[in-house]
Amino acid sequence: MELLTTNNVWMMICTALVFFMHLGFSLLEIGLTRQKNTINILFKNIFIITIGLLLYCVVGFNLMYPGFAEDSLGVFGFAGFGLDSPLTAEGVLDLTYNEGYTYWTDFLFQGMFAATAATIVSGAVAERVKIVPFMIFTVIYVGLVYPIAGSWKWGGGFLQTLETPFYDFAGSTLVHSVGGWAAVVAVCLLGPRIGKFKEGKPQAIPGHNIPLATAGVLILWLGWFGFNGGSVLSADPGLTSLTLVTTCLAAAAGGVVAMLVSTAMYKNLDLTMFLNGILGGLVGITAGADQMSPTDAILIGSIAGALIVFGVAFIDRLKLDDPVGAIAVHLICGIWGTLAVGIFGDLAGVDQFISQLIGVGAYAAFCLVTAFVIIFTLKKTMGIRVSEKEELEGLDAHEHGMDAYPDFRLNEH
Amino acid sequence: MELLTTNNVWMMICTALVFFMHLGFSLLEIGLTRQKNTINILFKNIFIITIGLLLYCVVGFNLMYPGFAEDSLGVFGFAGFGLDSPLTAEGVLDLTYNEGYTYWTDFLFQGMFAATAATIVSGAVAERVKIVPFMIFTVIYVGLVYPIAGSWKWGGGFLQTLETPFYDFAGSTLVHSVGGWAAVVAVCLLGPRIGKFKEGKPQAIPGHNIPLATAGVLILWLGWFGFNGGSVLSADPGLTSLTLVTTCLAAAAGGVVAMLVSTAMYKNLDLTMFLNGILGGLVGITAGADQMSPTDAILIGSIAGALIVFGVAFIDRLKLDDPVGAIAVHLICGIWGTLAVGIFGDLAGVDQFISQLIGVGAYAAFCLVTAFVIIFTLKKTMGIRVSEKEELEGLDAHEHGMDAYPDFRLNEH
Amino acid sequence: MELLTTNNVWMMICTALVFFMHLGFSLLEIGLTRQKNTINILFKNIFIITIGLLLYCVVGFNLMYPGFAEDSLGVFGFAGFGLDSPLTAEGVLDLTYNEGYTYWTDFLFQGMFAATAATIVSGAVAERVKIVPFMIFTVIYVGLVYPIAGSWKWGGGFLQTLETPFYDFAGSTLVHSVGGWAAVVAVCLLGPRIGKFKEGKPQAIPGHNIPLATAGVLILWLGWFGFNGGSVLSADPGLTSLTLVTTCLAAAAGGVVAMLVSTAMYKNLDLTMFLNGILGGLVGITAGADQMSPTDAILIGSIAGALIVFGVAFIDRLKLDDPVGAIAVHLICGIWGTLAVGIFGDLAGVDQFISQLIGVGAYAAFCLVTAFVIIFTLKKTMGIRVSEKEELEGLDAHEHGMDAYPDFRLNEH
Repeated sequence: MELLTTNNVWMMICTALVFFMHLGFSLLEIGLTRQKNTINILFKNIFIITIGLLLYCVVGFNLMYPGFAEDSLGVFGFAGFGLDSPLTAEGVLDLTYNEGYTYWTDFLFQGMFAATAATIVSGAVAERVKIVPFMIFTVIYVGLVYPIAGSWKWGGGFLQTLETPFYDFAGSTLVHSVGGWAAVVAVCLLGPRIGKFKEGKPQAIPGHNIPLATAGVLILWLGWFGFNGGSVLSADPGLTSLTLVTTCLAAAAGGVVAMLVSTAMYKNLDLTMFLNGILGGLVGITAGADQMSPTDAILIGSIAGALIVFGVAFIDRLKLDDPVGAIAVHLICGIWGTLAVGIFGDLAGVDQFISQLIGVGAYAAFCLVTAFVIIFTLKKTMGIRVSEKEELEGLDAHEHGMDAYPDFRLNEH
Repeated sequence: MELLTTNNVWMMICTALVFFMHLGFSLLEIGLTRQKNTINILFKNIFIITIGLLLYCVVGFNLMYPGFAEDSLGVFGFAGFGLDSPLTAEGVLDLTYNEGYTYWTDFLFQGMFAATAATIVSGAVAERVKIVPFMIFTVIYVGLVYPIAGSWKWGGGFLQTLETPFYDFAGSTLVHSVGGWAAVVAVCLLGPRIGKFKEGKPQAIPGHNIPLATAGVLILWLGWFGFNGGSVLSADPGLTSLTLVTTCLAAAAGGVVAMLVSTAMYKNLDLTMFLNGILGGLVGITAGADQMSPTDAILIGSIAGALIVFGVAFIDRLKLDDPVGAIAVHLICGIWGTLAVGIFGDLAGVDQFISQLIGVGAYAAFCLVTAFVIIFTLKKTMGIRVSEKEELEGLDAHEHGMDAYPDFRLNEH
Repeated sequence: MELLTTNNVWMMICTALVFFMHLGFSLLEIGLTRQKNTINILFKNIFIITIGLLLYCVVGFNLMYPGFAEDSLGVFGFAGFGLDSPLTAEGVLDLTYNEGYTYWTDFLFQGMFAATAATIVSGAVAERVKIVPFMIFTVIYVGLVYPIAGSWKWGGGFLQTLETPFYDFAGSTLVHSVGGWAAVVAVCLLGPRIGKFKEGKPQAIPGHNIPLATAGVLILWLGWFGFNGGSVLSADPGLTSLTLVTTCLAAAAGGVVAMLVSTAMYKNLDLTMFLNGILGGLVGITAGADQMSPTDAILIGSIAGALIVFGVAFIDRLKLDDPVGAIAVHLICGIWGTLAVGIFGDLAGVDQFISQLIGVGAYAAFCLVTAFVIIFTLKKTMGIRVSEKEELEGLDAHEHGMDAYPDFRLNEH
């Protein structure tokens, strides 16, 4: 009972920290885009966290942790609508549910994760997506796709029951790549922002509020204490503290390496690359944060940091317009982190590496297909992109009738 | 001892989170008002949290938890000035004080609550109140009115000893309505800002920094993990985690419903209503967050969300000028949440509902009268409103000789 | 085991809070300076926290806690490169390392402290320092000077083994003065910003974003819950909660007194002084936060608040240009807080006061000398100050090729 109480305290704090990541995502995304779309981005993010929690209560939690039937294939299960807390004979909450947390904590911690996948997409489609179709996409992706995908591993599905189980500690693949694959689809179907490519060359569209973007990254890093630390699913002293150490070292290494590489390549001390390198390191360590030594963590983070710089350039070369670098951060580093579990740390080995590849492939297929079906359908029915006039004048004025900064004189662009 | 340590850790974290709400309030309030009054608002809020803690140390704690004498009426008690920590025979802190926390934690957690009441008023009177009278009001209201009012229920006073005790888990009434009633009085005595009503019609005066307002709301939501979670007064795993679930679901439902209702009414995806709906949901669930099922919480939050939209319109129709919507959020949803304890959840019933009405009425009477006496006296003696010139030019220049954003070019209005 | 788990949870949370202080420092520093140097300041701060953690992993931790050999003088020791976690015979982490935390938590908590010293210097040299030499300084100061200095007391060195051991609970001297002394050296060697002194009189150079500066201070205050609360090195309920109470009361008193004194002196309700007074109170209480009564804490904080006002004026009179008041906050109040341990609270006494003086002197000598050697060498080799043109046009454009706020119209100055 004492231990459950302590474990549960830790898990609740981690839940709060993961919740707080939504402020981090919001600030990062508005900071790296133009002021004329700020309200729109904030609206999207607030929508994601609120509807995400409600949907996770109504269907998501029971899709993700269905308790797969023995004869199921571990691909789809559903334990029913709403929350159904386990009770003792006396009708109070059954605390034997788990040693690490109560039923309520379990729901809320996982619910905070759920919204993240859509938030990642939000960044990639910023400044040109129509808001109502985006809201519809969010409902389906957060309400159905994410929890079904999650069930394959965390819900005990087929990736968990592989001979060498796929491993994804806190979601390099289950959260970050799930968002990242959808971001790729969305960016392809949406097309780039007006002015992003001129004569085939990518143009910088500077973010309008770098202090808020920086605050966003530091808040995300803080939130990752909960994202990874809570994924231990108890307050086990050795595991939780090791996880925080590997998480922080990978973040630091990712930032420093991204800064060094981008400085070497572009002769410029680029703060945005530094920040995205930190995020890349965080995403990269997430799949195996509990399995790595400090040295492993620094190596994984360093490679993630380098991948960010090359990844951003690569995505530009593909003529994909991802305003905040979400694909490089969440997809490329998500894949890297997932594979790294087979290369570094306690699980390293050929079998594990193959399982990691299977996992990456399974999520790629499922997310690409489902995201394509959803977004393509939306594109063909209601349209997913705002008009040219609206895009040029800003989504805030047209979709929301509000300015983010009405007292400030602004530059037109 | 292990359990006390764990409980106390939880309570200290909740204390930190409630403290952090003051940043949330500050950012929300400046974000929803004009830049020319930003320094003034920040100054007020910093004053409230600092003087609030000092006053709670000197008199508040012992007014709020006086240990009412048996023959007292449970209306007023005072245990003496300053803090008087219980000691063991060996002269060290007596840890048998409470199973859930130490004497010091008790003081600090409650002290963080105390300042909140005045902060609510601060939002309602923003952009036109004279700062020195506001500071005097704060000292009296936080130092005396709030703790005396609080003693009636949380200090074991007459509302606690009703046959069916009044119930207010974390302060829909004791904190939010206590602030809200004073806000009503202050707004009535102050009058609206210049330009708020033209030919009897309310005019929108847009807030100058919506990103900061949004950050404020997310910080407040985070803080509510501590505000409600800590009001369990221990780390009891079932109760604390249920409380966080109901809190978050009510917030989410409040936001979504306010967004939907305001979109239906005004054909506009209004971010401010979305944000205030979240706050309304949070205030609404606060009185019974430990007594509700998830479904109850969603219903309570949803109704609070709708009340926000109608409440803001209603207050406008009354020609009251409440720049940040504090009355709708804290008073209307505070009353709603208090009454909801008699309608939903484990305590629902006619007797409870009547006790809730008695509680609401008692606080209304006490707060309206005391706030009126304080503010009316200030109005008749030193005046409570700045000059027209000062209001038009901004309080920052006149009261503080500082600009919030000196490097930015600003619009005059 | 239960107790270790609880203790370790508390220490991990405190670690997260101390990490979050880096956002507070960043926002405070950019808020109090001009927009044209914002990117530069953020870059510096992000560099400090990332490289700081990596360095603390590679050398710092083992320099600071070397386990001094018996025949050493307690001045310098080194336990080897990298982290070397203690293992049981079974090869898992040895949890008997300490009752209060694991090896990993120990490293990470201390690592978060390490970066702080350089951050303090960052504020003092803002708006004119060349970034590459500053980065070199950071590497040496955080990587070598801070941990060696720290070992003298927290690592069990000679100040710990004095007959009456020097006392510095959470680092008024070991962290804040260590940064503060280097700030003095750096400011002297750099010289004031262009325009700071005209005909010998200090000119106000207003900070460009006071809301962010205010947010920074409240985040720092929040972080201090972890900075001081975690310095108990366990979750001991009495000590941790007392520490939070003294910390918060000192902060509140420091703010209120600084506000009152500056209002009396300058007839102006100065928000910046209020904020720096809070920080002064926090720094002041840090050396003895676990040894003081609430009354002691209020007195220590009050004196710190007054010292801030006089200190800022004094530094101006010395023609030192410290854009954010770092010397007054971290050095003057750091010294005050250290000496206050000999005057107030459980350790007060002549012997203790003398030990405190010895400690202050030892750190002054070591930090002034090392900082001078490092910075003077940098000055004579690569130069430490940007060109006049770069300073006037802003470091962001020249060192980073980025604007912090490209969508906003800005004033030239």
